Amino acid sequence: MTHPLRKHIEEIISLTDEEFDFVLSHFEQIKKRKHQYIIQEGEFVNKEYWIINGCLKSYFVDDNGKEHIIQFGMENWWITDYESFVKQVASKTSIDCIEDSELLYITYENRERLTAEMHKMERFWAKKSKIGRIGLQNRILSLLQNSAKERYNLLLEQYPTLLQRVPKKMIAAYLGVSRETLSRLNS
Amino acid sequence: MTHPLRKHIEEIISLTDEEFDFVLSHFEQIKKRKHQYIIQEGEFVNKEYWIINGCLKSYFVDDNGKEHIIQFGMENWWITDYESFVKQVASKTSIDCIEDSELLYITYENRERLTAEMHKMERFWAKKSKIGRIGLQNRILSLLQNSAKERYNLLLEQYPTLLQRVPKKMIAAYLGVSRETLSRLNS
Repeated sequence: MTHPLRKHIEEIISLTDEEFDFVLSHFEQIKKRKHQYIIQEGEFVNKEYWIINGCLKSYFVDDNGKEHIIQFGMENWWITDYESFVKQVASKTSIDCIEDSELLYITYENRERLTAEMHKMERFWAKKSKIGRIGLQNRILSLLQNSAKERYNLLLEQYPTLLQRVPKKMIAAYLGVSRETLSRLNS
Repeated sequence: MTHPLRKHIEEIISLTDEEFDFVLSHFEQIKKRKHQYIIQEGEFVNKEYWIINGCLKSYFVDDNGKEHIIQFGMENWWITDYESFVKQVASKTSIDCIEDSELLYITYENRERLTAEMHKMERFWAKKSKIGRIGLQNRILSLLQNSAKERYNLLLEQYPTLLQRVPKKMIAAYLGVSRETLSRLNS
């Protein structure tokens, strides 16, 4: 069976068996249970994660202690706190598992080494980074939208299976609305 | 005198004279006056811009006709609608000049050609894309912050010269506050 990471990478570039083995040798695999975290606010992050299966949330707690969800992550998504990962500063966000999750991770050093040696992998991550940037731009547009209904539609467009997988209160925390408002949007 | 684009690129990778000439041959230079646009909502964007000098804003108009500023761009910034540029869909945002501006641009095709031929330039843009992503993540955190004062501080951290260059009403449109609230933050 083709490794899921290989399938994912080969959506953008193609690899020989030897090349994929070389790529994979730069990763480690871990399992996390629901509610376990992979990143905590304040930590210096040196891993980028790829989600084999499961569901995670990236969030931020404001000065009043209120949790705001920045993004969800599911199968085939890359996730980390990129500011901390790239600039080696303390993470402003936390990332927790919403479901039991299997993840691969690559350390910053391994990623630097791999992309320096393999132009194809540099190209792969460059494309992925562009796509991640688009996701964030759409998140900004969704936050600037006055209409909660529009924000809700943008969310479902980005994550079609979300409603089946994530508690309603988290969807409300993402949208910045009450549970009552969410029920209205949902009907 | 070293070309400003070369200086900018060489913050990340180094280039020989020949390599830089080759890179530059993929760009065109344009001048825009204050109030002129480079991208209009609904357009299919196939250029990425680099700002030699000047100041631009990327914005989005909501269903009620209200303008929300997503980002400002200044000297040494790359700017475009990345969703439209990468996915070839209609742009959801517009980009206008706030000051007379000199820009370089590269088309999508030229950028693909250049990054395929030169691993170093792929690497350069991969880094830049990561940094752009961090800027967007911080914009999201700033939108999720309940405190207008915190949002204001994050803005000044990102653009230290902004107050001297941009009308107060645009800063208010970025922060999502009234002019009166802005004056209080400012004091």
